[in-house]
Amino acid sequence: MSAHAVDGSCLLAGGTAGPAALSALLSAALDALATGAAERGGPLPGGGPDGVAADVRRTVGAAGRVLPERGTGPRESLDALVRAVARGAADPADPLCAGHLHCPPLALAVAAEVAASALNPSMDSWDQAPAASELESLVCRELAELVYGGRPAEPPAGAACAPGGPGAPGDPGRAPDALVTSGGTEANQLALLLAREAGFRRVVCGANAHHSVHRAAWLLGLEPPLVVPAERGVLDPAALDAVLRRSGGAAPLVVATAGTTDSGDVDPLEEIAALAARHGARWHVDAAYGGPLLFSERLRGRLAGTERADSVTFDLHKLGWQPVAAGLLAVPEARGLRALDHRADYLNADDDTDAGLPDLLGRSLRTTRRPDVLKVAVTLRALGRAGMAELVERTCEVAERFAGLVAADRRFELYADPPLSTVLFRPAGATDRTVALVRRRLLAEGRAVLGRAQLDGRLWLKATLLNPLARASDLSALLKLVADAVPHVPKGRSR
Amino acid sequence: MSAHAVDGSCLLAGGTAGPAALSALLSAALDALATGAAERGGPLPGGGPDGVAADVRRTVGAAGRVLPERGTGPRESLDALVRAVARGAADPADPLCAGHLHCPPLALAVAAEVAASALNPSMDSWDQAPAASELESLVCRELAELVYGGRPAEPPAGAACAPGGPGAPGDPGRAPDALVTSGGTEANQLALLLAREAGFRRVVCGANAHHSVHRAAWLLGLEPPLVVPAERGVLDPAALDAVLRRSGGAAPLVVATAGTTDSGDVDPLEEIAALAARHGARWHVDAAYGGPLLFSERLRGRLAGTERADSVTFDLHKLGWQPVAAGLLAVPEARGLRALDHRADYLNADDDTDAGLPDLLGRSLRTTRRPDVLKVAVTLRALGRAGMAELVERTCEVAERFAGLVAADRRFELYADPPLSTVLFRPAGATDRTVALVRRRLLAEGRAVLGRAQLDGRLWLKATLLNPLARASDLSALLKLVADAVPHVPKGRSR
Repeated sequence: MSAHAVDGSCLLAGGTAGPAALSALLSAALDALATGAAERGGPLPGGGPDGVAADVRRTVGAAGRVLPERGTGPRESLDALVRAVARGAADPADPLCAGHLHCPPLALAVAAEVAASALNPSMDSWDQAPAASELESLVCRELAELVYGGRPAEPPAGAACAPGGPGAPGDPGRAPDALVTSGGTEANQLALLLAREAGFRRVVCGANAHHSVHRAAWLLGLEPPLVVPAERGVLDPAALDAVLRRSGGAAPLVVATAGTTDSGDVDPLEEIAALAARHGARWHVDAAYGGPLLFSERLRGRLAGTERADSVTFDLHKLGWQPVAAGLLAVPEARGLRALDHRADYLNADDDTDAGLPDLLGRSLRTTRRPDVLKVAVTLRALGRAGMAELVERTCEVAERFAGLVAADRRFELYADPPLSTVLFRPAGATDRTVALVRRRLLAEGRAVLGRAQLDGRLWLKATLLNPLARASDLSALLKLVADAVPHVPKGRSR
Repeated sequence: MSAHAVDGSCLLAGGTAGPAALSALLSAALDALATGAAERGGPLPGGGPDGVAADVRRTVGAAGRVLPERGTGPRESLDALVRAVARGAADPADPLCAGHLHCPPLALAVAAEVAASALNPSMDSWDQAPAASELESLVCRELAELVYGGRPAEPPAGAACAPGGPGAPGDPGRAPDALVTSGGTEANQLALLLAREAGFRRVVCGANAHHSVHRAAWLLGLEPPLVVPAERGVLDPAALDAVLRRSGGAAPLVVATAGTTDSGDVDPLEEIAALAARHGARWHVDAAYGGPLLFSERLRGRLAGTERADSVTFDLHKLGWQPVAAGLLAVPEARGLRALDHRADYLNADDDTDAGLPDLLGRSLRTTRRPDVLKVAVTLRALGRAGMAELVERTCEVAERFAGLVAADRRFELYADPPLSTVLFRPAGATDRTVALVRRRLLAEGRAVLGRAQLDGRLWLKATLLNPLARASDLSALLKLVADAVPHVPKGRSR
């Protein structure tokens, strides 16, 4: 091996020497992040896709190719590429970057990620992740309890002779549990898979459901979901009732949404729970966006009914300020996950399991799996329930404040008061084409990132506000940018 | 919001202020990593699952619960949890931790991960990841070229009038491409999905194939794979030929393996390529483990034939020293990925795509997606092809050296010379039960992590050597630990 590769480029992150090796390289990465952010000087780079692509290609080209014959060394490489990616980022920490469910991560969660990456535990067997797997198990159970309430009461004293075994109170298989996923999409996919394996092969969802529900049905070899109308962004219970009446003998899986991607709307969960119960349907709540309202005593009522669902998608890389990925699928009883049990002799041979080595393979459809749970655990402990609640409440207040600005400004039309932290609005009297152009102009000029949503037959600008630290001045600056981006219309001429 | 949460716990990682906020917290995380590693004092903690679980529960319990009512603040949380996870880690940077395809990550790749986490781009739309998505596109194309060779030649000068359009030389749809995945499991799943969508609904694989092939078939609603014998760990071409002859009209997908999990063996790829061609079958190579041999001019011949496959799983969190996740699925022509095209109006509306905003949604089955490509790009540039080759070659040499030690020691039996970096061995004359006990004893006492593999009807200890820096003294120490862990057998008594 050449001296070059040994000297620096192939220092390892782990072991007792790892932290020192990391320290120097982390400084280089942070410097590059700071320089790149300064060079960007705004929420995203100007120049649009062509300009950004040219910049990245120039950076890559300076070394010849992505994979040059001879390496440039760790500092040059970190400096060049981290800086280019930072310079060309749409940075959700900038309050003018509010297009998507794309949150600004907390610094403490990012610091925890370094530890996860350096130790590189893999969550598919105990002997690759002894402590990380135990921590995951604790976090999953507590977050599932946040959704479903506490564990069933222990049997009362003196009840030791009551029928026990699986299914008895105190049996861990009866307690709520959750699986860690790469996000809401994988959690919804797992929900459909668990339903399929339980015999619910037909999916019914609202027109407001996330696209991943449709994609999961395709992946799993199921028929396309039956779509129930969702006027004004929420699933219509009367229409759902009609569909369930017509479904005949085979009860379906109903998918409801708590926080739609388009508008943040929450379906009428209590009514859906009652309909599912009446028709013998299984039902799932996609609370990827809205789930963290459960941290807040003030806001958790908006999700009432969720605790009756057969499975719940929950995600902390949206209203939880985690770096991607931090998804979860919660179920009311751990034994409901057994359809995922899987055997691979090198990971969970029977004699190893019998000897007490935990079997982790049924905890995911992935095999090698990053310990995303560490950053989540560090965040929950650092902030506590009260701190998480404050961040969620503050973020919803930011959205209310922005909606207030829009409502008070005659140049704009507000879609509705924000149910969560998404505000839909449009320039008054604009065509859909103008709305789309305004969004793309702001992107191309590097001024702001806004999303788009088609609702009520019209196209809206979408501000997905996930930055709890956004100030009033940021919000008025955002609105002014939009106003300035609307093409000037000569008097008397329609847009 | 209380002063508490604002003061420190909710500093953001992004923006121009992010690097400073991160710097202080990263120091805390590195200190906790160093302390935890020192407290562990070996490749993994002693005490087995019960001991580790008790330690983690004690740490969590010190704050009350995973989610206490009031937070403990970022420094306490990082210190407590990172330290506990480090103390309870099976650390692949320790040469005595050699159980699985669980690699020690390079410090420079971990430093790049911090930048990815801090910026938090999401790879599902351009306006969440302007530069990161362009970088991903460049890295994917170059790594696909490593598998499949360079792009088709540009049409010669003067050929401008030759038939053009899709399918013509120079068309990017005809050039090799790759998708980033969460690992080999997801890459294999995508390979089966692409085959299913192309009409190849039956899967044929060797008895040596990774369990994820079977699991993917189940997930996708396909019949269980037909299993071809794999004597001595490699797929038997004659048996495959017989299966393909019997498959009648519907040609299947054949899955071959380049680097099995059990032994590192490589299937006879050229022969399989010829059989697939003869029978009209599609074929996939799972090179999750062996793929990085392609970096080495000396070793890449072992993978000859891979370039004829319809898809190839490739993974850099095994022989690529990346923190999880760093998987890829390569295909010879980008247009072969179109079955994954997908529409979601908020991410890739037609008018946005027509206006030049790249459509990224078909690049993964996930929606929100972490930029795993950044650390890969930083590593490839820092080390170059030559540096990657040196690390791969050095790692294979470590395995050869360990196999040599085993072969020279009459207390042990060597399964075979290592085809890659996995060495199978067992105490001479031991029963399978003893082999399993030795492995579990080393785990429980925190002395070494070894894997296990069932081959030739017997159970073997498996040393999966992925640490290019392991020294000869580490290898003899590992072998001595195994020898010492074999139960003493009184003379004349059979084990």
